Amino acid sequence: MYAGYAAGFLYRPWNSSFGADLFKNDKKMLKTTYNLEVRYYETDLMGVVHHSNYIRYLECARHQCLVELGLPIDSIERDYGIMMPVTSVECNYHFPAKMGDVLRIESRIEKMPKARIEVLSDIFNQDGKLLADAKVVLGFIHSDTRKPTRIPECLHKAFSPYFDNE
Amino acid sequence: MYAGYAAGFLYRPWNSSFGADLFKNDKKMLKTTYNLEVRYYETDLMGVVHHSNYIRYLECARHQCLVELGLPIDSIERDYGIMMPVTSVECNYHFPAKMGDVLRIESRIEKMPKARIEVLSDIFNQDGKLLADAKVVLGFIHSDTRKPTRIPECLHKAFSPYFDNE
Amino acid sequence: MYAGYAAGFLYRPWNSSFGADLFKNDKKMLKTTYNLEVRYYETDLMGVVHHSNYIRYLECARHQCLVELGLPIDSIERDYGIMMPVTSVECNYHFPAKMGDVLRIESRIEKMPKARIEVLSDIFNQDGKLLADAKVVLGFIHSDTRKPTRIPECLHKAFSPYFDNE
Amino acid sequence: MYAGYAAGFLYRPWNSSFGADLFKNDKKMLKTTYNLEVRYYETDLMGVVHHSNYIRYLECARHQCLVELGLPIDSIERDYGIMMPVTSVECNYHFPAKMGDVLRIESRIEKMPKARIEVLSDIFNQDGKLLADAKVVLGFIHSDTRKPTRIPECLHKAFSPYFDNE
Repeated sequence: MYAGYAAGFLYRPWNSSFGADLFKNDKKMLKTTYNLEVRYYETDLMGVVHHSNYIRYLECARHQCLVELGLPIDSIERDYGIMMPVTSVECNYHFPAKMGDVLRIESRIEKMPKARIEVLSDIFNQDGKLLADAKVVLGFIHSDTRKPTRIPECLHKAFSPYFDNE
Repeated sequence: MYAGYAAGFLYRPWNSSFGADLFKNDKKMLKTTYNLEVRYYETDLMGVVHHSNYIRYLECARHQCLVELGLPIDSIERDYGIMMPVTSVECNYHFPAKMGDVLRIESRIEKMPKARIEVLSDIFNQDGKLLADAKVVLGFIHSDTRKPTRIPECLHKAFSPYFDNE
Repeated sequence: MYAGYAAGFLYRPWNSSFGADLFKNDKKMLKTTYNLEVRYYETDLMGVVHHSNYIRYLECARHQCLVELGLPIDSIERDYGIMMPVTSVECNYHFPAKMGDVLRIESRIEKMPKARIEVLSDIFNQDGKLLADAKVVLGFIHSDTRKPTRIPECLHKAFSPYFDNE
Repeated sequence: MYAGYAAGFLYRPWNSSFGADLFKNDKKMLKTTYNLEVRYYETDLMGVVHHSNYIRYLECARHQCLVELGLPIDSIERDYGIMMPVTSVECNYHFPAKMGDVLRIESRIEKMPKARIEVLSDIFNQDGKLLADAKVVLGFIHSDTRKPTRIPECLHKAFSPYFDNE
């Protein structure tokens, strides 16, 4: 995993500064931070970011987290034959993001994933204002049969150091 | 309102067949049906419609409903100075939509809107299979001050025939 | 082809009124018309449809044309193992589309496709105002090897009645 | 301008490494480089980035360039009342981008903008492979009247150091 990360480092120099940041805290959960800038085409007639784009931002944050864990989503699909479809999304919108904003998405996985991954996220702007909070649940399916499965071994290994044994 | 609708009818002939269909039922709620075809760019690496696009489809259905009520969203913003930001979204995904699918979105508003509109929707494919169910809540704000307000008079009038007096 | 179209008709009743319209004219070319309504999320901070969305609208028009020819794009990929990547796009923007607009895309293929399909399109709003004109070129590749190929037999057959023998 | 840039620097630390890079070269033109990672939802049924997204990537690169010049697009619109609509787009696609790819967009403006800005770009993947080349032309309009205008003074000043006097 580290080799992969190091290789990634060659052409993703900004990861170290704004990429997902993984660490164990007292509560033994997985926490990550992801930053991104609002893009012009993501705004709408109201002059703010369209609500559907937050759902996409959350995905960017999750994928960056997987990259940091050494398991980029495209590799999980290609190398392990596992897809991770979203099974539910909940998002509460508190304050709009605007063009020029730089968003910070703080995500946490509080329970070691088994049949599903539950990701809780807060989205802030550059002033630290909470724009939205969200819960996204993902499942696992075999990419050939599209049948549900439990968490694949590769992900179990990558995740387990961040949680207490259960 | 009817004149506007009739004018709209001239260049939107397909509304009559697949547009939102409004009627009072025993339960006195507002129900609408909206059909749309999956677009190629809405699919993703998994070969299915990306989950964020369902959030967009739901918006298309809401907007068509407003058109049928004689109050297209752009007119509400331009003529009445009211915007309707989404305040929360919940969506449960049951089965994926694919390229070539024609989706049917059945939506209902069960309570006469006051400070918010709560829209419940089910999304089906052409085989009648339930792909997703969702709840979207919208608020009302003044477009100049961006301050929250109660349902504007124009919408109150348009909605009230579909609900029992309260 | 007609059977396919008839089958499609069952669940796409609006095709007959606003779907692509295919006919031979004096010039022996393939012409189609496609209508679509602007969606809210397609607008941007300027209050008009973002320029990238016209590129997507053009694709919707092409796909509807293939449906009318009895060869929906997903079937071409799945049943014939052929993908049709876009190899170039040119689009000139004359006047902006706004929320509430209903667009009419008139497309024509002037030359029988061999190694490529060249599609010329004009996009109008409901007032007949020209919003944009475009040229999109597509190639053919085998979906397994991703190697270029000439027009597949299935498409050659579908297209040839619309052109003079060459 | 510099103060703004410095302030921006505080919360955009990654700009220095992957942001637009401005310099005069022998030819006296404006050149910039912008990097971005492919997002999952930008891929399509073919498993590659949808062609319309390159048009969006080009916009991200242009906007970053304006940020580096001290004139973010939202400020140009808000503070100077000038909008910069795209008047034409040409893009040639050579090789597909895939999930996991990190793209490098090299753009150049070869002529000092007067009534229009002409931006030429090449898009590469992390292996240095040319994926696409493009030309995008933008005009200037007053945001209130939507009438065309020549390059506004603020932009003229920001651009002129990068070009020979003409």
